[in-house]
Amino acid sequence: MSDLINIAAVQFSCTADPAENLATAIKLTRDAAAKGAKIVCLPELFLTRYFCQTEDPANYELAEPIPGPTSEVFESLSAELGVSIVLSLFEKRTEGLYHNTACVVDPKKGYMGKYRKMHIPDDPLFMEKYYFAPGDLGVRIFETQGIKLAVLICWDQWFPEAARLAALKGAQVICYPTAIGWQPYEQESHGAAQYSAWETIQRSHAVANGCFVVAVNRTGFEPTSNSGSYPDGIQFWGQSFIAGPDGVIIIQAKEKDEGAFVAPIRLKAIPEQRHGWPFLRDRRTDAYKALSETLMDD
Amino acid sequence: MSDLINIAAVQFSCTADPAENLATAIKLTRDAAAKGAKIVCLPELFLTRYFCQTEDPANYELAEPIPGPTSEVFESLSAELGVSIVLSLFEKRTEGLYHNTACVVDPKKGYMGKYRKMHIPDDPLFMEKYYFAPGDLGVRIFETQGIKLAVLICWDQWFPEAARLAALKGAQVICYPTAIGWQPYEQESHGAAQYSAWETIQRSHAVANGCFVVAVNRTGFEPTSNSGSYPDGIQFWGQSFIAGPDGVIIIQAKEKDEGAFVAPIRLKAIPEQRHGWPFLRDRRTDAYKALSETLMDD
Repeated sequence: MSDLINIAAVQFSCTADPAENLATAIKLTRDAAAKGAKIVCLPELFLTRYFCQTEDPANYELAEPIPGPTSEVFESLSAELGVSIVLSLFEKRTEGLYHNTACVVDPKKGYMGKYRKMHIPDDPLFMEKYYFAPGDLGVRIFETQGIKLAVLICWDQWFPEAARLAALKGAQVICYPTAIGWQPYEQESHGAAQYSAWETIQRSHAVANGCFVVAVNRTGFEPTSNSGSYPDGIQFWGQSFIAGPDGVIIIQAKEKDEGAFVAPIRLKAIPEQRHGWPFLRDRRTDAYKALSETLMDD
Repeated sequence: MSDLINIAAVQFSCTADPAENLATAIKLTRDAAAKGAKIVCLPELFLTRYFCQTEDPANYELAEPIPGPTSEVFESLSAELGVSIVLSLFEKRTEGLYHNTACVVDPKKGYMGKYRKMHIPDDPLFMEKYYFAPGDLGVRIFETQGIKLAVLICWDQWFPEAARLAALKGAQVICYPTAIGWQPYEQESHGAAQYSAWETIQRSHAVANGCFVVAVNRTGFEPTSNSGSYPDGIQFWGQSFIAGPDGVIIIQAKEKDEGAFVAPIRLKAIPEQRHGWPFLRDRRTDAYKALSETLMDD
């Protein structure tokens, strides 16, 4: 097979109408395929507004089984277009047990399995611990289109441990479906630093692990439906990007762009980078046991 | 005590004369103290040229015990100036056993102990595995000037595990004495990406751990004394910097600057950052055991 494979980061704004978001995701997946993409990554929980701004039990009704109705739609689309699709959905596992989950569908293999978000945030307007039980499947590798793909989700991207586990399992590409943005009251004071921190840490995972990173965010402003003490809503910052194993950004959407951002990734860049800086050779596995501690304060 | 403490990153070029380098280090430590620094970090192995460009047993003669003659010089200087000093030296532990080591001296406590570089590189012109046995002391915290300081060394900076261990032990500041540069034959093609990767991964440690990072590099060009198949030498890229817990660079030297770069760090920025993005709360310590594996290929 070729050393080059096109990957698409699909960025768009989500409305209050799931049917409309589904139609947008399908349209942009078709656009990505038309541009030559073989793997398409959609943003986190793209079927709905980012409902975790508030704690509302009515939102549990938005969840669905995986595999289930939405994964089946994309399984058909995958087979039709010959592209693999990374799909982030609100998973209903049973009554009262829900996860923030991503699955992969492959044009030949169909539904390939799922990853459940391991690191769950809980901050004002990002109240995910209410909705999502922490993932219990560990980090997984999906072999699709001739590459080894790991899927991690949003808050996972702040944890070098998650990216390292993906690399140790053989990931050549790590996809991060994401929903991150600014809270209006802090955008002016902290917005630039927050965005830069986000881009920086994901580029660092590419560098530390000598692999590609695909970060796919939504865009648009979403108001808080039940604001309490945190008014306004979230301005999602878009800027989805793909970085190479040297940490260099290959393609990047602008904040308010909507579309399929397709770039070729060159798999030989992985050994080239790892031969130049062979970090995996020099890890001190004898000294990392304490990484399983919460804090070494006792 | 005040919430602000001044830290100095001291950057200079090293000559072939250790006495001259010692004099430069002392002069710039005095400059740092005059600018109000309470903690001074010197670059990696500043007493000598970066001798690891070649494998030459004669270089073992450059090593010294720690504590030993050089640490004693800086212990006196520390007491005189009231500053703590992070000192990177070539440690002779016994005949045939050497380490790449840093120690900390405190104006009141004197010699505080040492850290031995855990991750040892070995690449063309950076042949450290020949000279240095991997550190056997783990990551250590030095309580000095009212803060908890960890010292890691150069290649350690590519390993998120090392920074995380420092943070789990309570580090508020991580200092990285460093000697990194471009090989002339690759500077044009890879230089910008290499430098950016270096800055990015250290800023990412600040972000992931909500702590300050002090990266202190040497500058100048050093020819290879015995070039073999890799001619020329190393152009050390300077650009020492201090980053806050939000990953923002507070002060940064230029590539060819020599001097003491002093900036105030504001300790309250640590809880502010960690309260905004409480990553330590959400680590999946139940899932990190495999970080102690070399690769999950079996």
